[in-house]
Amino acid sequence: MTDSALIRRSPVPPGDCNLAKSFALIGDRWSLMILRSALYGLRRFDDFQTELEIPRTVLSSRLAGLVESGIMERRDYREDGQRTRVEYPLTKMGQALSLPFIAMTEWGDRWLGDGHSPLTLRSKASGERLRVALVDEAGKAVRPADIDTVITTRPGGRKT
Amino acid sequence: MTDSALIRRSPVPPGDCNLAKSFALIGDRWSLMILRSALYGLRRFDDFQTELEIPRTVLSSRLAGLVESGIMERRDYREDGQRTRVEYPLTKMGQALSLPFIAMTEWGDRWLGDGHSPLTLRSKASGERLRVALVDEAGKAVRPADIDTVITTRPGGRKT
Repeated sequence: MTDSALIRRSPVPPGDCNLAKSFALIGDRWSLMILRSALYGLRRFDDFQTELEIPRTVLSSRLAGLVESGIMERRDYREDGQRTRVEYPLTKMGQALSLPFIAMTEWGDRWLGDGHSPLTLRSKASGERLRVALVDEAGKAVRPADIDTVITTRPGGRKT
Repeated sequence: MTDSALIRRSPVPPGDCNLAKSFALIGDRWSLMILRSALYGLRRFDDFQTELEIPRTVLSSRLAGLVESGIMERRDYREDGQRTRVEYPLTKMGQALSLPFIAMTEWGDRWLGDGHSPLTLRSKASGERLRVALVDEAGKAVRPADIDTVITTRPGGRKT
């Protein structure tokens, strides 16, 4: 492997990092697994519980956290002749996790899979297989050598 | 919000899902935070410890897990007149987490940030700001309406 330059401190400190903030909200295995199922369309408490085999108290506390973060909503529903139950649809904020989760799935397919990828994304128009990439303002994927990492200081002047 | 169709079970069960496998390896806050710092270039035990304010025993066990997963390497180094210490550079597998982490950072910038994004990626050639997107085989970003989710059964015939 080729070493990157040795860095002693991250240029973006954890306390000023929106990635770190994301991990603080959803960076635990159960929350991530709940969100995986939710992105596939699950939203009922019992369905999460059955699919994930998660203790009900843990599921309940994780869902409450995701609602508090604004990632899910809590909503009553009732089927004919049944008691009222609770469902947890994703908000727009939650639905927007789709792209990072797809990027993470690609990583898993490449490095942890056995060559079979259960989930693939394709263009409806052309049938071409889609992949996650960094694109410019015209929507064109850029080559890795053309990518520049820019760390900016906060407008107030505080170095970030 | 517009509800997606109600799904009772994910079309890709957790046990056959490479995203779930990824979460099993790195889906805890400390591992994610260590990897965040590592992607910025940190690789020394003491530097992770200082930056993250993580208990040394926890750091030690998380790093061991990341090495076992093939995401990091464990390597001795020695500076003049000092004792041998250990560093943990990312492997190629670890470096490949860059794209999902960037996608997650974009999500954090959009939904958790205060309008300031400490990290931006730009094209070296044009200076244009880059973003994460799904692209077709020609490297052209596709519109959300053109994205088709395809779930495939395993070649052996086992339904996934």
